Amino acid sequence: MKEKKYADVREQIVNLNSVHIGEIMEQLDVPEAIILFRTLPKDLAIDVFNYTSSDFQEKLISSITDKELEHIMHEIYFDDMIDLLEEMPAKVVKKILKYSNVEERKLINEFLNYPDNSAGSLMTIEYVDLKKDMTVAKAIEHIKATGVNKETIYTCYVIGEERKLEGIISLRNLILSDYSLPIKDIMKKDIVYVHTHDDQEEVAHVFKKYDLIAVPVVDLEGRLTGIITVDDIVDVIEQENTEDFQKMAAMAPSEEEYLNTGVWKLAKNRLMWLIILMVSATFTGGIIKRFEDVLQSVVILTAFIPMLMDTGGNAGSQSATLVIRSIALGEIKAKDTLRVVWKEFRVSLIVGVILSFINFLRLYFIERVSLNISITVCLTLVFTVILAKIVGAVLPILAKKLKLDPAIMASPLITTIVDAASLIVYFSVAKLMLGI
Amino acid sequence: MKEKKYADVREQIVNLNSVHIGEIMEQLDVPEAIILFRTLPKDLAIDVFNYTSSDFQEKLISSITDKELEHIMHEIYFDDMIDLLEEMPAKVVKKILKYSNVEERKLINEFLNYPDNSAGSLMTIEYVDLKKDMTVAKAIEHIKATGVNKETIYTCYVIGEERKLEGIISLRNLILSDYSLPIKDIMKKDIVYVHTHDDQEEVAHVFKKYDLIAVPVVDLEGRLTGIITVDDIVDVIEQENTEDFQKMAAMAPSEEEYLNTGVWKLAKNRLMWLIILMVSATFTGGIIKRFEDVLQSVVILTAFIPMLMDTGGNAGSQSATLVIRSIALGEIKAKDTLRVVWKEFRVSLIVGVILSFINFLRLYFIERVSLNISITVCLTLVFTVILAKIVGAVLPILAKKLKLDPAIMASPLITTIVDAASLIVYFSVAKLMLGI
Repeated sequence: MKEKKYADVREQIVNLNSVHIGEIMEQLDVPEAIILFRTLPKDLAIDVFNYTSSDFQEKLISSITDKELEHIMHEIYFDDMIDLLEEMPAKVVKKILKYSNVEERKLINEFLNYPDNSAGSLMTIEYVDLKKDMTVAKAIEHIKATGVNKETIYTCYVIGEERKLEGIISLRNLILSDYSLPIKDIMKKDIVYVHTHDDQEEVAHVFKKYDLIAVPVVDLEGRLTGIITVDDIVDVIEQENTEDFQKMAAMAPSEEEYLNTGVWKLAKNRLMWLIILMVSATFTGGIIKRFEDVLQSVVILTAFIPMLMDTGGNAGSQSATLVIRSIALGEIKAKDTLRVVWKEFRVSLIVGVILSFINFLRLYFIERVSLNISITVCLTLVFTVILAKIVGAVLPILAKKLKLDPAIMASPLITTIVDAASLIVYFSVAKLMLGI
Repeated sequence: MKEKKYADVREQIVNLNSVHIGEIMEQLDVPEAIILFRTLPKDLAIDVFNYTSSDFQEKLISSITDKELEHIMHEIYFDDMIDLLEEMPAKVVKKILKYSNVEERKLINEFLNYPDNSAGSLMTIEYVDLKKDMTVAKAIEHIKATGVNKETIYTCYVIGEERKLEGIISLRNLILSDYSLPIKDIMKKDIVYVHTHDDQEEVAHVFKKYDLIAVPVVDLEGRLTGIITVDDIVDVIEQENTEDFQKMAAMAPSEEEYLNTGVWKLAKNRLMWLIILMVSATFTGGIIKRFEDVLQSVVILTAFIPMLMDTGGNAGSQSATLVIRSIALGEIKAKDTLRVVWKEFRVSLIVGVILSFINFLRLYFIERVSLNISITVCLTLVFTVILAKIVGAVLPILAKKLKLDPAIMASPLITTIVDAASLIVYFSVAKLMLGI
């Protein structure tokens, strides 16, 4: 009866998208999921396997027979295998590696050794390679014969002696060309490529600039070592953006999903910056202490400190965010510093004056604060906004020049700096205006 | 002599990548650039044209002959033409539209009417369509005959009556299949597609989930109206991220590059939120006024306000950023609210206690602040961190439930809320501890 049910389900299931089959399988109990998995055609099974979560993959690997595992390991793309090895616990890794020969293990080790987030760690070795003397017809025949195990067949790589990359040809150009032409007449020689040790962020830039669906990865001697496909780059872009969001909110970046991250790990990621910023904020407290006499005589001045600090923080964070983002997208370079400062100066003057005007109306006419105090608060506000915006714009560019990550120069750090400066101005103006 | 030089340059240039040729051309004066442009083979010229900036495109269109423009308009992909029409000034648009017939103009109008950032506004009409009764051999022949003008030939669409989308087949499957099979036997029927009015963010989610290089766009009746390719989606992802960054820093989102945006426009984008937040921050000032008596008697309490406010702001911004990002990536759903709150409560307890402990050591042992004041500050700090993290985590989820954009619930708004609450606690604890 149950067997019958699975047969029915299978019939319906093999016509579905692999992603959908994976989703269905993860909702089943492990024994049921394995029965379903076993009924899938072999090629589809690998594809579905790739789309399941690593938790599920671990359960599956631990439960299937050695022979089934051997088949998966034989058919899985090399980059997916490397990802799998990096994610599985040691016991499972051992089980997986049982089915690799010495040659393969050497290659696996080489790939596991590429730095995290480097082009090498993203690439796969399943690409189509052609020779420049093949005709188009011969090349298509070659693709038909070997293509089934390649991650992509849409870009093919023309290889010379010692696997030197000599040209690139898209399947599109092959199909649309005269089948009797030799590859060397139609291949592209102005090749866009990356190096094994390039950072994934640079690789993503290359994809965006040239609208690629795959890029070749070469070693220092110009030998083709692998390719990176666009689906992996889409993930890289999201990951790099997540990192920037985290750094800009003063956290240690983490690739783990929030709900899967433990409480202690989350606390650790957040603590370091909070401590640094808390200790820095005490300097601001020191400034207040230095002006205790001013506060003592006009306590009401305290009431405007939060508004000044918050507005300064927000104004600075706006500029910092725009500049950090523009640097990340390659729109602002170090040579633009003066243009940016001049722009921010003008913007902050407009913004600061308008904010102060609104604030003055509210203070003087609605809250009936004395004229001198109203002027003190509003003058400080203009100064704070201008300073915040210029500091917010300059620090990220400076960080870039110093080869630091611009994203760490975001609102929390800027707030701390601007707080201190604006309080000094506030109390100094107050002393002058109020004759304390 | 000059002619000779261009001929030489041309020889070297036609072998370059279109992006590189575009870059070279933009560095020339317009008359020189046009001479170079004219020497390019027609197909390459279109490609290069697409990779130049809209400023340059405008200059070029204004300078070339009508016949040349007609050629460009005839060869350019439909989605690129729509983008061009959206970016060019009215005069240039008029010049461009001269070369379209009534039928085309109707289509152009239809495309220009799709909402900004909808699937319809991203799609192109140059795709390969097949019939389900064709054999693979026939299909490849069809692609060879018509493919040159298609944006992609790697995914082909099987169309039935009234252009209803019946199946999808990749060029990969075509090439790797038996050439005598009919398409209907090998096409995929579990089609992943989007609707013309779907938001581009949803479209990007679909690309990420299914690792696509193209997706079909259908209207409400299931008729195929266009396709979207992955290179456009990469841009969409970056654009959506930029928007989130901007909203999270309390700015009106803008698609323009920073350096190309005017000072007034920048000021306008930033002012609204700054005004709202500045006015909200005055509530905090109101709280301080209410406790003026406490401050009057222990002025030193003021010195710790910046530290408490900044730490609260930073702690809240960390949680808000993580939650907003997780919502954007589809990792946190509304049903996870309680899990998130419970997680943030534990994290904030750990973080708050550690921060307070460090702070206590510094206050009591190094700065020699009185025990009662040290305890007041540290108790308030624990409370502030817990409140900030829970508010920071809950508000974005709440926004999502109310169909608002979670990104607006970022640090600036949270800071304002947490400031007020933590000051009330601060002064209340102070009154109790110091017996004021």
